Amino acid sequence: MRTICLTIGFDGTEYHGYQIQRGKRTVQGTLQQAVRLVLPGTVSVTGCGRTDAGVHAQVYYVRVVTQSEMPLRKIPLALTANLPDDITVYRASEMPADFHPRYSMQSKEYTYRIWNRRTRNPFLLRYAYHVPRAVNREAMRLAARGFLGTHDFRCCQSAGSDQEDTVRTIYECELTERGDLLELRIRGSGFLYNMVRIIAGTVLEAGLGRMDPAAVATILAGGERAQMGPTLPAHGLAMTAVTYKEGFVP
Amino acid sequence: MRTICLTIGFDGTEYHGYQIQRGKRTVQGTLQQAVRLVLPGTVSVTGCGRTDAGVHAQVYYVRVVTQSEMPLRKIPLALTANLPDDITVYRASEMPADFHPRYSMQSKEYTYRIWNRRTRNPFLLRYAYHVPRAVNREAMRLAARGFLGTHDFRCCQSAGSDQEDTVRTIYECELTERGDLLELRIRGSGFLYNMVRIIAGTVLEAGLGRMDPAAVATILAGGERAQMGPTLPAHGLAMTAVTYKEGFVP
Repeated sequence: MRTICLTIGFDGTEYHGYQIQRGKRTVQGTLQQAVRLVLPGTVSVTGCGRTDAGVHAQVYYVRVVTQSEMPLRKIPLALTANLPDDITVYRASEMPADFHPRYSMQSKEYTYRIWNRRTRNPFLLRYAYHVPRAVNREAMRLAARGFLGTHDFRCCQSAGSDQEDTVRTIYECELTERGDLLELRIRGSGFLYNMVRIIAGTVLEAGLGRMDPAAVATILAGGERAQMGPTLPAHGLAMTAVTYKEGFVP
Repeated sequence: MRTICLTIGFDGTEYHGYQIQRGKRTVQGTLQQAVRLVLPGTVSVTGCGRTDAGVHAQVYYVRVVTQSEMPLRKIPLALTANLPDDITVYRASEMPADFHPRYSMQSKEYTYRIWNRRTRNPFLLRYAYHVPRAVNREAMRLAARGFLGTHDFRCCQSAGSDQEDTVRTIYECELTERGDLLELRIRGSGFLYNMVRIIAGTVLEAGLGRMDPAAVATILAGGERAQMGPTLPAHGLAMTAVTYKEGFVP
Protein backbone atom coordinates (compact mmCIF):
# COMPACT_ATOMS: atom_id res chain seq x y z
CA MET A 1 0.00 0.00 0.00
CA ARG A 2 1.31 3.48 -0.87
CA THR A 3 0.56 6.84 0.73
CA ILE A 4 0.60 9.60 -1.85
CA CYS A 5 0.07 13.31 -1.37
CA LEU A 6 -1.47 15.22 -4.28
CA THR A 7 -0.91 18.96 -4.56
CA ILE A 8 -4.00 20.24 -6.32
CA GLY A 9 -5.62 23.58 -7.16
CA PHE A 10 -9.24 24.40 -7.92
CA ASP A 11 -11.50 27.24 -8.93
CA GLY A 12 -14.32 26.78 -6.43
CA THR A 13 -16.97 28.77 -8.32
CA GLU A 14 -18.90 25.72 -9.48
CA TYR A 15 -18.48 23.58 -6.33
CA HIS A 16 -20.23 23.23 -2.98
CA GLY A 17 -16.85 23.23 -1.27
CA TYR A 18 -14.26 20.46 -0.97
CA GLN A 19 -16.03 18.03 1.34
CA ILE A 20 -18.26 15.41 -0.28
CA GLN A 21 -22.03 15.96 0.12
CA ARG A 22 -24.85 13.82 -1.19
CA GLY A 23 -26.44 15.23 -4.35
CA LYS A 24 -24.07 18.19 -4.61
CA ARG A 25 -21.09 18.84 -6.86
CA THR A 26 -18.01 18.89 -4.64
CA VAL A 27 -14.29 18.89 -5.31
CA GLN A 28 -13.79 15.69 -3.33
CA GLY A 29 -16.59 13.90 -5.18
CA THR A 30 -15.20 14.95 -8.56
CA LEU A 31 -11.63 14.10 -7.58
CA GLN A 32 -12.57 10.68 -6.19
CA GLN A 33 -14.12 9.70 -9.50
CA ALA A 34 -10.91 10.51 -11.35
CA VAL A 35 -8.75 8.76 -8.74
CA ARG A 36 -10.89 5.62 -8.91
CA LEU A 37 -10.43 5.58 -12.68
CA VAL A 38 -6.71 6.34 -12.83
CA LEU A 39 -5.48 4.64 -9.65
CA PRO A 40 -7.43 1.39 -9.19
CA GLY A 41 -7.01 -0.14 -5.75
CA THR A 42 -7.38 3.19 -3.93
CA VAL A 43 -8.77 2.80 -0.41
CA SER A 44 -9.11 6.45 0.66
CA VAL A 45 -8.98 10.06 -0.57
CA THR A 46 -8.61 12.57 2.29
CA GLY A 47 -8.41 16.35 1.97
CA CYS A 48 -6.60 18.88 4.19
CA GLY A 49 -9.82 20.47 5.44
CA ARG A 50 -13.29 21.64 4.52
CA THR A 51 -13.74 24.67 2.32
CA ASP A 52 -16.97 26.62 1.91
CA ALA A 53 -18.99 26.61 -1.29
CA GLY A 54 -17.41 28.95 -3.83
CA VAL A 55 -14.04 29.26 -2.08
CA HIS A 56 -10.96 28.69 -4.26
CA ALA A 57 -7.68 26.90 -3.58
CA GLN A 58 -4.47 27.92 -5.31
CA VAL A 59 -3.00 24.96 -3.45
CA TYR A 60 -4.72 22.22 -1.53
CA TYR A 61 -3.36 18.86 -0.35
CA VAL A 62 -5.00 15.49 -0.63
CA ARG A 63 -3.81 12.12 0.71
CA VAL A 64 -4.47 9.07 -1.44
CA VAL A 65 -3.89 5.60 0.03
CA THR A 66 -3.67 3.19 -2.86
CA GLN A 67 -2.41 -0.14 -4.18
CA SER A 68 -1.81 1.37 -7.63
CA GLU A 69 1.79 1.14 -8.82
CA MET A 70 1.61 4.00 -11.30
CA PRO A 71 4.92 5.92 -11.27
CA LEU A 72 4.66 9.23 -9.37
CA ARG A 73 5.71 11.24 -12.40
CA LYS A 74 2.72 10.06 -14.42
CA ILE A 75 0.04 10.69 -11.82
CA PRO A 76 -0.52 14.50 -12.16
CA LEU A 77 -1.11 14.41 -15.90
CA ALA A 78 -3.17 11.21 -15.82
CA LEU A 79 -5.48 12.62 -13.13
CA THR A 80 -5.71 16.12 -14.62
CA ALA A 81 -6.71 14.63 -17.97
CA ASN A 82 -9.69 13.03 -16.20
CA LEU A 83 -10.77 16.13 -14.30
CA PRO A 84 -12.82 19.16 -15.40
CA ASP A 85 -10.89 22.31 -16.33
CA ASP A 86 -11.38 23.94 -12.95
CA ILE A 87 -9.43 21.30 -10.98
CA THR A 88 -5.81 20.45 -11.60
CA VAL A 89 -3.27 18.11 -10.01
CA TYR A 90 0.14 19.81 -9.92
CA ARG A 91 2.22 17.21 -8.18
CA ALA A 92 2.22 13.77 -6.56
CA SER A 93 4.62 12.93 -3.71
CA GLU A 94 5.37 9.65 -1.95
CA MET A 95 4.73 10.10 1.81
CA PRO A 96 5.31 8.16 5.04
CA ALA A 97 2.36 5.93 5.99
CA ASP A 98 1.54 8.13 9.01
CA PHE A 99 1.17 11.31 6.95
CA HIS A 100 -2.21 12.96 7.40
CA PRO A 101 -3.14 16.03 5.31
CA ARG A 102 -4.85 17.66 8.30
CA TYR A 103 -3.04 16.38 11.40
CA SER A 104 0.48 16.66 9.95
CA MET A 105 -0.21 20.32 9.18
CA GLN A 106 1.68 23.16 10.81
CA SER A 107 -0.17 26.16 9.40
CA LYS A 108 -2.63 27.11 6.73
CA GLU A 109 -2.79 30.37 4.79
CA TYR A 110 -5.81 32.00 3.20
CA THR A 111 -5.93 35.18 1.15
CA TYR A 112 -9.01 37.38 0.92
CA ARG A 113 -9.04 39.65 -2.15
CA ILE A 114 -10.87 42.94 -2.47
CA TRP A 115 -11.09 44.96 -5.69
CA ASN A 116 -11.30 48.53 -4.41
CA ARG A 117 -12.20 50.79 -7.30
CA ARG A 118 -15.49 52.37 -8.32
CA THR A 119 -16.06 50.05 -11.26
CA ARG A 120 -15.56 46.27 -11.47
CA ASN A 121 -12.45 44.54 -12.82
CA PRO A 122 -13.42 42.11 -15.62
CA PHE A 123 -10.50 39.80 -14.79
CA LEU A 124 -11.34 39.50 -11.09
CA LEU A 125 -15.11 39.02 -11.17
CA ARG A 126 -14.78 35.48 -9.81
CA TYR A 127 -11.77 36.05 -7.58
CA ALA A 128 -12.18 39.30 -5.67
CA TYR A 129 -14.98 40.99 -3.73
CA HIS A 130 -15.81 44.36 -5.26
CA VAL A 131 -15.83 47.27 -2.79
CA PRO A 132 -16.52 50.45 -4.81
CA ARG A 133 -16.12 52.89 -1.89
CA ALA A 134 -12.61 54.10 -1.09
CA VAL A 135 -11.27 52.55 2.12
CA ASN A 136 -8.73 53.65 4.71
CA ARG A 137 -5.95 51.15 4.16
CA GLU A 138 -4.01 52.23 7.25
CA ALA A 139 -7.06 51.50 9.43
CA MET A 140 -7.35 48.08 7.77
CA ARG A 141 -3.70 47.31 8.51
CA LEU A 142 -4.17 48.28 12.13
CA ALA A 143 -7.33 46.18 12.50
CA ALA A 144 -5.57 43.20 10.89
CA ARG A 145 -2.78 43.35 13.47
CA GLY A 146 -5.40 43.01 16.23
CA PHE A 147 -6.02 39.38 15.26
CA LEU A 148 -2.40 38.29 15.67
CA GLY A 149 -1.56 35.78 18.38
CA THR A 150 -3.40 33.07 20.31
CA HIS A 151 -7.00 33.87 21.18
CA ASP A 152 -10.35 32.30 21.76
CA PHE A 153 -11.94 33.04 18.37
CA ARG A 154 -15.51 31.98 19.28
CA CYS A 155 -16.77 35.39 18.11
CA CYS A 156 -15.23 34.69 14.68
CA GLN A 157 -17.34 31.70 13.69
CA SER A 158 -20.74 31.43 12.10
CA ALA A 159 -23.70 30.00 13.95
CA GLY A 160 -24.22 26.30 13.38
CA SER A 161 -20.69 25.27 14.20
CA ASP A 162 -20.30 22.59 16.86
CA GLN A 163 -16.61 23.29 17.42
CA GLU A 164 -15.81 23.04 21.14
CA ASP A 165 -12.19 24.13 21.15
CA THR A 166 -12.23 27.62 19.69
CA VAL A 167 -8.68 28.67 20.56
CA ARG A 168 -6.52 29.27 17.50
CA THR A 169 -3.23 31.05 16.77
CA ILE A 170 -2.88 33.60 13.99
CA TYR A 171 0.76 33.91 12.89
CA GLU A 172 0.32 36.49 10.15
CA CYS A 173 -2.51 38.82 9.22
CA GLU A 174 -1.31 41.33 6.72
CA LEU A 175 -2.81 43.63 4.12
CA THR A 176 -0.84 44.10 0.90
CA GLU A 177 -1.78 46.28 -2.07
CA ARG A 178 -1.23 45.91 -5.78
CA GLY A 179 -2.78 49.09 -7.12
CA ASP A 180 -6.52 48.80 -6.50
CA LEU A 181 -6.33 45.16 -5.48
CA LEU A 182 -6.15 44.61 -1.72
CA GLU A 183 -5.03 41.23 -0.41
CA LEU A 184 -5.49 40.20 3.21
CA ARG A 185 -3.22 37.25 3.88
CA ILE A 186 -3.98 35.26 7.04
CA ARG A 187 -1.82 32.40 8.26
CA GLY A 188 -2.87 30.43 11.30
CA SER A 189 -2.77 27.12 13.15
CA GLY A 190 -6.29 26.44 11.94
CA PHE A 191 -9.56 28.23 11.33
CA LEU A 192 -13.13 27.97 12.61
CA TYR A 193 -16.20 27.89 10.37
CA ASN A 194 -16.20 31.10 8.26
CA MET A 195 -13.46 32.57 10.46
CA VAL A 196 -11.36 34.05 7.63
CA ARG A 197 -14.37 35.66 5.98
CA ILE A 198 -15.44 37.17 9.33
CA ILE A 199 -11.92 38.50 10.02
CA ALA A 200 -11.85 39.99 6.51
CA GLY A 201 -15.28 41.52 7.10
CA THR A 202 -14.08 43.09 10.35
CA VAL A 203 -10.93 44.47 8.75
CA LEU A 204 -13.09 45.94 5.97
CA GLU A 205 -15.46 47.56 8.49
CA ALA A 206 -12.46 49.34 9.97
CA GLY A 207 -11.43 50.44 6.46
CA LEU A 208 -14.90 51.85 5.82
CA GLY A 209 -14.76 53.83 9.06
CA ARG A 210 -17.55 51.83 10.71
CA MET A 211 -15.37 50.36 13.46
CA ASP A 212 -12.45 51.52 15.57
CA PRO A 213 -9.46 49.47 14.34
CA ALA A 214 -7.88 49.64 17.79
CA ALA A 215 -10.93 47.92 19.31
CA VAL A 216 -10.31 44.51 17.74
CA ALA A 217 -8.45 43.09 20.76
CA THR A 218 -11.21 44.15 23.16
CA ILE A 219 -13.95 42.78 20.93
CA LEU A 220 -12.09 39.47 20.58
CA ALA A 221 -11.87 39.21 24.36
CA GLY A 222 -15.59 40.01 24.66
CA GLY A 223 -16.43 37.05 22.43
CA GLU A 224 -19.58 38.43 20.82
CA ARG A 225 -20.14 37.55 17.16
CA ALA A 226 -22.34 40.62 16.67
CA GLN A 227 -19.44 42.96 17.51
CA MET A 228 -17.40 41.61 14.59
CA GLY A 229 -17.92 42.57 10.94
CA PRO A 230 -20.04 40.66 8.42
CA THR A 231 -19.03 37.38 6.76
CA LEU A 232 -17.69 38.51 3.37
CA PRO A 233 -18.70 36.59 0.19
CA ALA A 234 -16.96 33.29 -0.57
CA HIS A 235 -15.62 34.14 -4.03
CA GLY A 236 -12.99 36.57 -2.64
CA LEU A 237 -11.39 33.79 -0.60
CA ALA A 238 -8.67 31.34 -1.62
CA MET A 239 -6.49 28.90 0.26
CA THR A 240 -3.00 29.99 -0.75
CA ALA A 241 -0.54 27.87 1.25
CA VAL A 242 -0.20 25.04 3.74
CA THR A 243 2.94 24.20 5.70
CA TYR A 244 3.60 20.72 7.08
CA LYS A 245 5.64 19.42 10.02
CA GLU A 246 9.15 18.15 9.48
CA GLY A 247 9.24 14.80 7.75
CA PHE A 248 5.82 15.43 6.23
CA VAL A 249 6.57 18.04 3.58
CA PRO A 250 5.00 16.92 0.27
CA MET B 1 -18.34 69.76 -27.88
CA ARG B 2 -16.19 67.84 -25.35
CA THR B 3 -13.33 65.45 -25.95
CA ILE B 4 -13.28 62.73 -23.32
CA CYS B 5 -10.84 59.88 -22.88
CA LEU B 6 -12.16 56.68 -21.32
CA THR B 7 -9.75 54.29 -19.63
CA ILE B 8 -11.34 50.89 -20.10
CA GLY B 9 -10.42 47.23 -19.59
CA PHE B 10 -11.84 44.13 -21.23
CA ASP B 11 -11.61 40.37 -21.19
CA GLY B 12 -11.35 39.66 -24.91
CA THR B 13 -12.41 35.98 -24.77
CA GLU B 14 -15.89 36.59 -26.18
CA TYR B 15 -14.97 39.32 -28.71
CA HIS B 16 -13.67 39.47 -32.27
CA GLY B 17 -11.22 42.12 -31.20
CA TYR B 18 -11.75 45.83 -30.51
CA GLN B 19 -12.45 47.14 -34.01
CA ILE B 20 -16.06 47.11 -35.15
CA GLN B 21 -16.94 44.46 -37.78
CA ARG B 22 -20.28 43.80 -39.39
CA GLY B 23 -22.13 40.84 -37.87
CA LYS B 24 -19.49 40.15 -35.22
CA ARG B 25 -19.37 40.87 -31.51
CA THR B 26 -16.66 43.47 -30.96
CA VAL B 27 -15.62 45.63 -28.02
CA GLN B 28 -16.13 48.82 -30.02
CA GLY B 29 -19.60 47.75 -31.15
CA THR B 30 -20.63 46.89 -27.61
CA LEU B 31 -19.11 50.06 -26.15
CA GLN B 32 -20.71 52.33 -28.76
CA GLN B 33 -24.16 51.04 -27.82
CA ALA B 34 -23.59 51.94 -24.18
CA VAL B 35 -22.11 55.34 -25.07
CA ARG B 36 -25.06 56.18 -27.32
CA LEU B 37 -27.42 55.37 -24.45
CA VAL B 38 -25.55 57.13 -21.64
CA LEU B 39 -24.01 60.08 -23.52
CA PRO B 40 -26.54 61.28 -26.10
CA GLY B 41 -25.06 63.68 -28.64
CA THR B 42 -21.89 61.63 -29.13
CA VAL B 43 -20.35 62.07 -32.57
CA SER B 44 -17.45 59.59 -32.42
CA VAL B 45 -15.94 56.72 -30.39
CA THR B 46 -12.31 56.02 -31.36
CA GLY B 47 -10.04 53.36 -29.88
CA CYS B 48 -6.26 53.38 -29.43
CA GLY B 49 -5.70 50.58 -31.94
CA ARG B 50 -6.94 47.28 -33.27
CA THR B 51 -6.67 44.16 -31.14
CA ASP B 52 -6.99 40.59 -32.45
CA ALA B 53 -9.93 38.36 -31.58
CA GLY B 54 -9.49 36.92 -28.11
CA VAL B 55 -6.81 39.36 -26.97
CA HIS B 56 -7.38 41.08 -23.60
CA ALA B 57 -6.77 44.62 -22.41
CA GLN B 58 -5.99 45.41 -18.80
CA VAL B 59 -6.03 49.01 -19.98
CA TYR B 60 -7.20 50.46 -23.26
CA TYR B 61 -8.00 54.08 -24.17
CA VAL B 62 -10.98 55.36 -26.09
CA ARG B 63 -11.74 58.91 -27.22
CA VAL B 64 -15.36 60.03 -27.12
CA VAL B 65 -16.35 63.30 -28.79
CA THR B 66 -19.70 64.30 -27.38
CA GLN B 67 -22.18 67.08 -26.66
CA SER B 68 -23.29 65.34 -23.46
CA GLU B 69 -22.78 67.41 -20.32
CA MET B 70 -22.71 64.52 -17.87
CA PRO B 71 -20.15 65.26 -15.11
CA LEU B 72 -16.90 63.30 -15.58
CA ARG B 73 -17.22 61.63 -12.20
CA LYS B 74 -20.49 59.97 -13.16
CA ILE B 75 -19.44 58.60 -16.52
CA PRO B 76 -17.47 55.44 -15.52
CA LEU B 77 -20.25 54.00 -13.37
CA ALA B 78 -23.03 55.00 -15.78
CA LEU B 79 -21.28 53.33 -18.72
CA THR B 80 -20.14 50.25 -16.79
CA ALA B 81 -23.72 49.65 -15.61
CA ASN B 82 -24.73 49.45 -19.29
CA LEU B 83 -21.91 47.12 -20.38
CA PRO B 84 -21.56 43.35 -20.08
CA ASP B 85 -19.41 42.02 -17.20
CA ASP B 86 -16.34 41.58 -19.37
CA ILE B 87 -15.91 45.28 -20.20
CA THR B 88 -15.44 48.00 -17.63
CA VAL B 89 -14.84 51.77 -17.73
CA TYR B 90 -12.36 52.72 -15.02
CA ARG B 91 -12.02 56.42 -15.63
CA ALA B 92 -13.13 59.37 -17.76
CA SER B 93 -10.80 62.33 -18.36
CA GLU B 94 -11.42 65.67 -20.08
CA MET B 95 -8.89 66.07 -22.94
CA PRO B 96 -7.74 68.82 -25.35
CA ALA B 97 -9.69 68.80 -28.63
CA ASP B 98 -6.61 67.63 -30.57
CA PHE B 99 -6.11 64.50 -28.45
CA HIS B 100 -6.13 61.33 -30.50
CA PRO B 101 -5.95 57.93 -28.77
CA ARG B 102 -3.60 56.57 -31.45
CA TYR B 103 -1.64 59.57 -32.76
CA SER B 104 -1.02 61.17 -29.34
CA MET B 105 0.50 57.89 -28.17
CA GLN B 106 4.13 57.55 -27.17
CA SER B 107 4.37 53.82 -26.55
CA LYS B 108 2.23 50.77 -26.07
CA GLU B 109 2.94 47.77 -23.86
CA TYR B 110 1.72 44.22 -24.28
CA THR B 111 2.32 41.26 -21.99
CA TYR B 112 2.34 37.67 -23.24
CA ARG B 113 1.73 35.11 -20.47
CA ILE B 114 2.89 31.50 -20.47
CA TRP B 115 1.94 28.96 -17.80
CA ASN B 116 4.96 26.67 -17.74
CA ARG B 117 4.11 23.62 -15.68
CA ARG B 118 3.12 20.12 -16.71
CA THR B 119 -0.52 20.51 -15.76
CA ARG B 120 -2.83 23.45 -16.42
CA ASN B 121 -3.61 26.25 -13.96
CA PRO B 122 -7.39 26.52 -13.43
CA PHE B 123 -7.15 30.27 -12.75
CA LEU B 124 -5.21 31.07 -15.92
CA LEU B 125 -7.07 28.98 -18.53
CA ARG B 126 -8.28 32.12 -20.29
CA TYR B 127 -5.23 34.32 -19.64
CA ALA B 128 -2.06 32.32 -20.24
CA TYR B 129 -0.83 29.93 -22.92
CA HIS B 130 -0.04 26.54 -21.40
CA VAL B 131 3.43 25.19 -22.24
CA PRO B 132 3.83 21.88 -20.35
CA ARG B 133 7.48 21.27 -21.36
CA ALA B 134 10.19 22.86 -19.23
CA VAL B 135 11.85 25.78 -21.00
CA ASN B 136 15.28 27.37 -20.76
CA ARG B 137 14.44 30.77 -19.27
CA GLU B 138 17.94 32.13 -19.80
CA ALA B 139 17.71 31.39 -23.52
CA MET B 140 14.33 33.16 -23.61
CA ARG B 141 15.80 36.23 -21.91
CA LEU B 142 18.62 36.32 -24.42
CA ALA B 143 16.27 35.93 -27.41
CA ALA B 144 14.01 38.69 -26.01
CA ARG B 145 16.92 41.12 -25.90
CA GLY B 146 17.50 40.54 -29.62
CA PHE B 147 14.30 42.44 -30.45
CA LEU B 148 15.31 45.65 -28.67
CA GLY B 149 15.88 48.77 -30.73
CA THR B 150 14.71 50.13 -34.09
CA HIS B 151 14.36 47.53 -36.84
CA ASP B 152 12.40 46.71 -39.94
CA PHE B 153 9.99 44.16 -38.44
CA ARG B 154 8.51 42.92 -41.75
CA CYS B 155 9.38 39.34 -40.74
CA CYS B 156 7.29 39.79 -37.60
CA GLN B 157 3.90 40.30 -39.21
CA SER B 158 1.31 37.86 -40.44
CA ALA B 159 0.48 37.54 -44.12
CA GLY B 160 -2.46 39.67 -45.20
CA SER B 161 -1.19 42.90 -43.72
CA ASP B 162 -0.95 45.85 -46.10
CA GLN B 163 1.31 47.86 -43.82
CA GLU B 164 3.95 49.67 -45.92
CA ASP B 165 6.11 51.19 -43.20
CA THR B 166 7.32 48.22 -41.17
CA VAL B 167 9.97 49.99 -39.09
CA ARG B 168 9.20 50.00 -35.38
CA THR B 169 11.13 50.61 -32.16
CA ILE B 170 11.05 48.18 -29.25
CA TYR B 171 11.98 49.94 -25.99
CA GLU B 172 11.62 47.00 -23.62
CA CYS B 173 11.34 43.27 -24.18
CA GLU B 174 11.75 41.47 -20.90
CA LEU B 175 10.88 38.10 -19.44
CA THR B 176 9.85 38.04 -15.78
CA GLU B 177 8.88 35.00 -13.71
CA ARG B 178 6.41 34.50 -10.90
CA GLY B 179 6.92 30.85 -10.08
CA ASP B 180 5.65 28.87 -13.06
CA LEU B 181 4.10 31.91 -14.72
CA LEU B 182 6.31 33.54 -17.35
CA GLU B 183 5.49 37.04 -18.52
CA LEU B 184 7.05 38.57 -21.61
CA ARG B 185 6.52 42.33 -21.44
CA ILE B 186 7.05 44.20 -24.72
CA ARG B 187 6.91 47.98 -24.98
CA GLY B 188 7.26 49.64 -28.37
CA SER B 189 6.43 52.62 -30.55
CA GLY B 190 3.81 50.50 -32.27
CA PHE B 191 3.21 46.96 -33.47
CA LEU B 192 2.48 45.29 -36.79
CA TYR B 193 -0.28 42.72 -37.32
CA ASN B 194 0.36 39.78 -34.91
CA MET B 195 3.83 41.15 -34.15
CA VAL B 196 3.75 40.57 -30.38
CA ARG B 197 2.46 37.02 -30.76
CA ILE B 198 5.22 36.27 -33.30
CA ILE B 199 7.92 37.77 -31.06
CA ALA B 200 6.57 35.69 -28.15
CA GLY B 201 6.56 32.60 -30.39
CA THR B 202 10.18 33.22 -31.34
CA VAL B 203 11.26 33.75 -27.73
CA LEU B 204 9.49 30.50 -26.81
CA GLU B 205 11.23 28.59 -29.64
CA ALA B 206 14.54 29.68 -28.12
CA GLY B 207 13.33 28.49 -24.71
CA LEU B 208 12.40 25.10 -26.15
CA GLY B 209 15.87 24.76 -27.68
CA ARG B 210 14.60 24.90 -31.27
CA MET B 211 16.33 28.14 -32.13
CA ASP B 212 19.62 29.82 -31.29
CA PRO B 213 18.71 32.79 -29.08
CA ALA B 214 21.74 34.73 -30.36
CA ALA B 215 20.44 34.47 -33.95
CA VAL B 216 17.49 36.82 -33.48
CA ALA B 217 19.34 39.92 -34.74
CA THR B 218 20.49 38.13 -37.91
CA ILE B 219 17.06 36.71 -38.61
CA LEU B 220 15.47 40.14 -38.10
CA ALA B 221 17.91 41.59 -40.65
CA GLY B 222 17.13 38.76 -43.08
CA GLY B 223 13.45 39.68 -43.00
CA GLU B 224 11.99 36.22 -43.59
CA ARG B 225 8.80 35.39 -41.67
CA ALA B 226 9.53 31.65 -41.89
CA GLN B 227 12.70 32.06 -39.85
CA MET B 228 10.75 33.44 -36.90
CA GLY B 229 8.73 31.35 -34.45
CA PRO B 230 5.00 30.61 -34.71
CA THR B 231 2.22 33.07 -33.88
CA LEU B 232 1.21 32.10 -30.33
CA PRO B 233 -2.51 31.87 -29.40
CA ALA B 234 -4.41 35.10 -28.72
CA HIS B 235 -5.63 34.31 -25.19
CA GLY B 236 -2.12 34.65 -23.70
CA LEU B 237 -1.89 38.26 -24.85
CA ALA B 238 -3.04 41.42 -23.07
CA MET B 239 -2.48 45.11 -23.64
CA THR B 240 -1.07 46.25 -20.30
CA ALA B 241 -0.09 49.91 -20.68
CA VAL B 242 -0.09 52.91 -23.02
CA THR B 243 1.92 56.07 -22.52
CA TYR B 244 0.89 59.38 -24.08
CA LYS B 245 2.81 62.47 -25.16
CA GLU B 246 3.06 65.45 -22.83
CA GLY B 247 -0.17 67.38 -22.59
CA PHE B 248 -2.15 64.32 -23.62
CA VAL B 249 -1.95 62.14 -20.53
CA PRO B 250 -5.49 60.95 -19.65
